[in-house]
Amino acid sequence: MPVETQEEVPEIKEPLRRVGITNLRTVAKINWKGREYTFLPLIEITIDLPAEKKGIHMSRLVESITEAMGEAVEEEVLKVHTSLEELGKCVIERLEKKHPHRRAEVWIKTHLIIPRVTPASRKTSYEPYDVEVGVIKNDDGSFEKVLRVRVIGNTACPHAMANNNGKTHIQRAIGELEIRAPFSEEIELEEMIDIVEGSFSNPTYTLLKTEDENAVVRGMYKNPKFVEDVAREIFAKARERFGGRIHVRVISNESIHKHDVIAETWS
Amino acid sequence: MPVETQEEVPEIKEPLRRVGITNLRTVAKINWKGREYTFLPLIEITIDLPAEKKGIHMSRLVESITEAMGEAVEEEVLKVHTSLEELGKCVIERLEKKHPHRRAEVWIKTHLIIPRVTPASRKTSYEPYDVEVGVIKNDDGSFEKVLRVRVIGNTACPHAMANNNGKTHIQRAIGELEIRAPFSEEIELEEMIDIVEGSFSNPTYTLLKTEDENAVVRGMYKNPKFVEDVAREIFAKARERFGGRIHVRVISNESIHKHDVIAETWS
Amino acid sequence: MPVETQEEVPEIKEPLRRVGITNLRTVAKINWKGREYTFLPLIEITIDLPAEKKGIHMSRLVESITEAMGEAVEEEVLKVHTSLEELGKCVIERLEKKHPHRRAEVWIKTHLIIPRVTPASRKTSYEPYDVEVGVIKNDDGSFEKVLRVRVIGNTACPHAMANNNGKTHIQRAIGELEIRAPFSEEIELEEMIDIVEGSFSNPTYTLLKTEDENAVVRGMYKNPKFVEDVAREIFAKARERFGGRIHVRVISNESIHKHDVIAETWS
Amino acid sequence: MPVETQEEVPEIKEPLRRVGITNLRTVAKINWKGREYTFLPLIEITIDLPAEKKGIHMSRLVESITEAMGEAVEEEVLKVHTSLEELGKCVIERLEKKHPHRRAEVWIKTHLIIPRVTPASRKTSYEPYDVEVGVIKNDDGSFEKVLRVRVIGNTACPHAMANNNGKTHIQRAIGELEIRAPFSEEIELEEMIDIVEGSFSNPTYTLLKTEDENAVVRGMYKNPKFVEDVAREIFAKARERFGGRIHVRVISNESIHKHDVIAETWS
Repeated sequence: MPVETQEEVPEIKEPLRRVGITNLRTVAKINWKGREYTFLPLIEITIDLPAEKKGIHMSRLVESITEAMGEAVEEEVLKVHTSLEELGKCVIERLEKKHPHRRAEVWIKTHLIIPRVTPASRKTSYEPYDVEVGVIKNDDGSFEKVLRVRVIGNTACPHAMANNNGKTHIQRAIGELEIRAPFSEEIELEEMIDIVEGSFSNPTYTLLKTEDENAVVRGMYKNPKFVEDVAREIFAKARERFGGRIHVRVISNESIHKHDVIAETWS
Repeated sequence: MPVETQEEVPEIKEPLRRVGITNLRTVAKINWKGREYTFLPLIEITIDLPAEKKGIHMSRLVESITEAMGEAVEEEVLKVHTSLEELGKCVIERLEKKHPHRRAEVWIKTHLIIPRVTPASRKTSYEPYDVEVGVIKNDDGSFEKVLRVRVIGNTACPHAMANNNGKTHIQRAIGELEIRAPFSEEIELEEMIDIVEGSFSNPTYTLLKTEDENAVVRGMYKNPKFVEDVAREIFAKARERFGGRIHVRVISNESIHKHDVIAETWS
Repeated sequence: MPVETQEEVPEIKEPLRRVGITNLRTVAKINWKGREYTFLPLIEITIDLPAEKKGIHMSRLVESITEAMGEAVEEEVLKVHTSLEELGKCVIERLEKKHPHRRAEVWIKTHLIIPRVTPASRKTSYEPYDVEVGVIKNDDGSFEKVLRVRVIGNTACPHAMANNNGKTHIQRAIGELEIRAPFSEEIELEEMIDIVEGSFSNPTYTLLKTEDENAVVRGMYKNPKFVEDVAREIFAKARERFGGRIHVRVISNESIHKHDVIAETWS
Repeated sequence: MPVETQEEVPEIKEPLRRVGITNLRTVAKINWKGREYTFLPLIEITIDLPAEKKGIHMSRLVESITEAMGEAVEEEVLKVHTSLEELGKCVIERLEKKHPHRRAEVWIKTHLIIPRVTPASRKTSYEPYDVEVGVIKNDDGSFEKVLRVRVIGNTACPHAMANNNGKTHIQRAIGELEIRAPFSEEIELEEMIDIVEGSFSNPTYTLLKTEDENAVVRGMYKNPKFVEDVAREIFAKARERFGGRIHVRVISNESIHKHDVIAETWS
């Protein structure tokens, strides 16, 4: 019989909050609005560890993930994994049968590719977004979720525009929106992305024909914004639209400086 | 006269918590225990922005940094900048004269190189550590600090050792300790580093002659530890030694897996 | 009519080798051995630019990618995109109809997830690998390809083992194998991965039950290897098995040091 | 007596090109034009390994670095380490007495902070640059060097400007210049930086008062450039000024796209 060192009493009897595995790359499928999507996400899964146990059984966490992700569950995918957070919850539910714990967290980090229509030529442009979804089972058994999106846009400086007869410096900016809410709250990542993307001086596109590029350029000059303006607009729209706690962070890769500027706020 | 767009009333009247500059690489000097040390840190500096102002004056934040860092203040360096957090506080004090605000934060991220003595040949080995210091001026004018160290060590798995007649898997591990405390609390980064470095299966060294390597190898086998054990030891020692809120995170780059394992806790 | 600045004669008449777009995240599908696989790769696509033209038409490069990747080509995917390099070649073939050029390159970077069987419990473990495929059309119209794999494994130091009665330091190591060959050369990424993974002290697994962990631990002690040994084995096996130019790089995240060790060679 | 496993004959008798240590963070001092500068560089040092030796003695490489960097050599620093490449050469010269080899390489990666004068207010602005210096001793005993600089600037698109009555998209761009030359060739990193920085639409500054910002904004509109134009200008100026082989790479973080554009060439 193998020794189960994990079950021993540790020298230092101190409970730990988050113990588990991180930076695990795997494959995941979800069935969103009737269509199957495949991802290769980066996963973290942790549980709490009571003071009197030396360690957790790491392999059971891996099993919970690979079983929920695996091909054996094709049917389950079609019915249950209708979003990244439903998938995360299924991982925790499998874990409940494998490893005792009071708290558990699953974090899933991937990219979404969303088709958009360009502003003038009306062509389809596939836009990439970074998303991360956390599912947290609290001590009392309640489920929370944390949804994060990261969107690339731009800022056209209103201060320089006012001082240079309409000329100004423009640059790429990155907007991040995080919402922490009860699991049952209906929040779509796509809608969060739309809010961030719509708060820049102008949205960006992967494909731009000359007439589209002209439309984007004119859009940026019509809508000059500080990084502060972008952060405020994301925050105000998200608070109006969603329940939960909101965190906004916007970073602008200044074209006139070697450093970045930042605006951040939270509720 | 230039237009000051920053002073206008914004469309969305929402106060912002942290507005400023980030990812600024510059040069800094401190005089620690009578000796001058030079760094090339990465700096972030932010202030709050009230609801009725459109933006902050970014260049004044840069001035506060470059003046405090600059060569004109050689004398000040010798007398006042006796630690990274004293330097951060000086930046905020300069900023007070340049830009109205209620809250301010300065974050300074750099490396420390500390000489150690190897365990058998007693040679000097220069060990690198990542450190980050945050100085926060709160709304009430009180000052807090956040000190972070990141130390590279190792874990030798006690579970595999118990099941394989003393053989086990060993790997690099990274321990992070963060302390948030009132500014006046006496906390030395070097002591925080010592606590983390001393909590692994064995410390690591840049220079190891064969006799030293043997001592490190034997040390690891005498002291097998889960990532959970390392986290508990750092946490318990830091709580005993320092005031303030403590956060510990240990990540082990498993040699038998492609993913990492993690143990985290906080007070 | 829009101005086509790209067609103007530049001030400095100097031909450029590689002009295009990089860091483009998109979706790609291939039909490998009868099954459809979806990826979210990072793409780079470049062409040469003659001395007398000021710029290239970037949007045509994007179109070549998105059309080849897009859903309109489902049928083509099933028949033609039977590997990442076939997909890359299709992108270049589309580009030939859109933008004159003599040289072209497409680089596709993604992850592969491959099911493995664990050494003792015979469970399925899904293992992640980083891969990159480059397809290069040379000036003479010939096609080359560059295939890269990056595999996580481990090293158990034979020198420490010889000096410490069978005890030694063990650590995670990363092996990289690159092959540059004519496009027609039959080289499977999976086979390249197998060669690298089989050259470490022991393969690593995402899922390891205790009996599997024991097998991996014993395997590492039976097969101690310097980073130099791993590099030589990968190089020798790859040269025996594949045509083309071979480049090998192995990095070991030493558990006794804070730095890494490296062994590299090429043909 | 310890076993010297490195001296054994390996199973696979294959010479290796580059074996050594990498990602070593340490402290370095140079005396440049009469002033002492301190760095915390990242270092790589490798030698070749003949077919009949199993491994190299890694600790001797570390000793060569730490001795050359250390405080015991203050006098040597003042006289001999007058540049990063002289420092690299000293490391190899120390290594010659410690470890037999035919080829050796030392790579030193750090930041330079250079004071500049802003364009209108004539204030001092400290600008950061990434630099890397490689020193290579070839099989025939000759010394070569590789110098790399990485500079942050900007591009203002001439195509959009021509199609939008002088309005255009502007963005941060990164220019990289590498020169490989005989060791004796006189090439200053500062001059390489000046060439790259002077090839963008306008230089960037860390500190910009409103009048300076206006000057930078107007400068960008007066000097619209494709990423291709920037690459050509760097290449032409570097070829005119320096001997050796030249490699140029410019990447523009497009403000209208989520991806980057790239222009690259070499001699």
